[in-house]
Amino acid sequence: MHEFLGRSLPSSVTIVEVGPRDGLQNEPEKVSTDVKVQLIDQLTAAGLPVIESTSFVSPKWVPQLADAADVLARIAQRPGVRYPVLAPNMKGFENALKAGAREVAIFTAASEAFNRKNLNCSVDESLRKFDDVMAAAKREGVAVRGYVSCVVGCPYQGEVLPEDAARVAGALHEMGCYEVSMGDTIGTGTPASVAAMFEACKQRVPVERLAAHMHDTYGQGVANTLAALQMGVAVVDSSVAGLGGCPYAKGATGNVSTEDVVYMLDGFGIRHGVDMERLLDASEFICRALGRRNNSRAAEALLKKRQARREAAPAAA
Amino acid sequence: MHEFLGRSLPSSVTIVEVGPRDGLQNEPEKVSTDVKVQLIDQLTAAGLPVIESTSFVSPKWVPQLADAADVLARIAQRPGVRYPVLAPNMKGFENALKAGAREVAIFTAASEAFNRKNLNCSVDESLRKFDDVMAAAKREGVAVRGYVSCVVGCPYQGEVLPEDAARVAGALHEMGCYEVSMGDTIGTGTPASVAAMFEACKQRVPVERLAAHMHDTYGQGVANTLAALQMGVAVVDSSVAGLGGCPYAKGATGNVSTEDVVYMLDGFGIRHGVDMERLLDASEFICRALGRRNNSRAAEALLKKRQARREAAPAAA
Repeated sequence: MHEFLGRSLPSSVTIVEVGPRDGLQNEPEKVSTDVKVQLIDQLTAAGLPVIESTSFVSPKWVPQLADAADVLARIAQRPGVRYPVLAPNMKGFENALKAGAREVAIFTAASEAFNRKNLNCSVDESLRKFDDVMAAAKREGVAVRGYVSCVVGCPYQGEVLPEDAARVAGALHEMGCYEVSMGDTIGTGTPASVAAMFEACKQRVPVERLAAHMHDTYGQGVANTLAALQMGVAVVDSSVAGLGGCPYAKGATGNVSTEDVVYMLDGFGIRHGVDMERLLDASEFICRALGRRNNSRAAEALLKKRQARREAAPAAA
Repeated sequence: MHEFLGRSLPSSVTIVEVGPRDGLQNEPEKVSTDVKVQLIDQLTAAGLPVIESTSFVSPKWVPQLADAADVLARIAQRPGVRYPVLAPNMKGFENALKAGAREVAIFTAASEAFNRKNLNCSVDESLRKFDDVMAAAKREGVAVRGYVSCVVGCPYQGEVLPEDAARVAGALHEMGCYEVSMGDTIGTGTPASVAAMFEACKQRVPVERLAAHMHDTYGQGVANTLAALQMGVAVVDSSVAGLGGCPYAKGATGNVSTEDVVYMLDGFGIRHGVDMERLLDASEFICRALGRRNNSRAAEALLKKRQARREAAPAAA
């Protein structure tokens, strides 16, 4: 454990790279399967221990990820690395299994208003909809990760109470999710609200089963991740190049970037296993492929330095 | 005081807005005096308690701020608000005084390499160069703020030791600076190194005399400011719209933005006196005037929401 301001920080953190799924699903232009596969392979090469690779949902919902089975078949899976996929219902679960997935993720929201508006059911009803997936996963020996979205703020109801987020986290954990990722989907959280949320969650779920999934829409992503680490959370979701937007603030920044998180972890000497240089390769690759600006500030600065080094080097070298 | 993770945070924070000086001085295109004056007046209207307004240095060094006396003469100074100006030598000090400045700032770097390269003298020699300004300021009853740059990282020597930053902070405080602002000029600091730096500074300077001046070049600006708050620092330098670049990583982000800092402080309920809506007015104004992207993520998200509200409102409203 590392000491920081009187709190013990985790000595190692597991980074869950969500760019290929959570990031790309919000891209307006179709991304080719080739690009997706290359991205995931580069992330594997960079040492990411967990790469959420795609989503087995109806192509009507998320046309961007309609090639889920192809992606999973074509990526070069490295032993020891996990490649979870989203599978929010039995059809998706069966397709995921058929495609070779060994880990799936399900999701609901902490906010009643969000569930009512998006899924036309209560939070409790949304949880019961996963009963069949959970039972099938148990039967098949497939690990299930749970996502809770809108854990501190909701686009419809505003503030979300820590106790409401904790209750949903507790329910997912009890249903058999090996880990519950707490998502500040709209990025309105601050270190204060994120810490309060995790404090409540820790009363119901062992902290080693909790993950922080922060967004940088209001510039709080890294600070909120720090608050989570200070609460003892040792699993952090992030997205290479800050891929992903915020569906409720068009054009605004989405997921906290993997590069910014790695940069902070390195400052603490916290182990994470990611090679920043190869991560930058992946970051540069995907931004070029999508023709988009890099939303990671650390990547932007480090890639500029890399470019300057290249320009300064003799051409023959 | 606010409790956060077992540490007391300041119950109120003084934000020192540095956009008009630290921000604009790095703008490549000439900014008109009108725009500078309007910006400062809008920042005053937004409730900023301290606005660093310009710099009385040789126009050969910083041509962008050659209109320093004009700016100071034309802004609408609100009673109780401070408008410090940079005045790093006697000539600058005398011009500042003549122009009506009641508070000045001087600066040096914590890094020997930086001083040698930029000022052609050692850190100690750079400090002695301020003796005459300090004496004159005392005589005239002018408050002096001290800046230390490169407090955790230096573009020439890399890492800067906490003790080196603390020694320079201590020297400036002993010379009579009422406050010493610790600047992570190249933005390579992380919460770990920033906390270690302030820990060392607190051995030599009372914490209420220390300010955090963080940059966001590597995405750590808000998290580093949080670390400073957790160390008890209650004065934060920031720049509206994240104005300012990093002279050592061309095109990269500079100062942490005032909007992102205000957003975090609001999460804690820490008093700061800034009206976010009017701050957004200033932010929008200066980005339009400069034709530049807003470097504050909070401003970007909040201005998009504002725009959406306007589009949704009936035209006659």
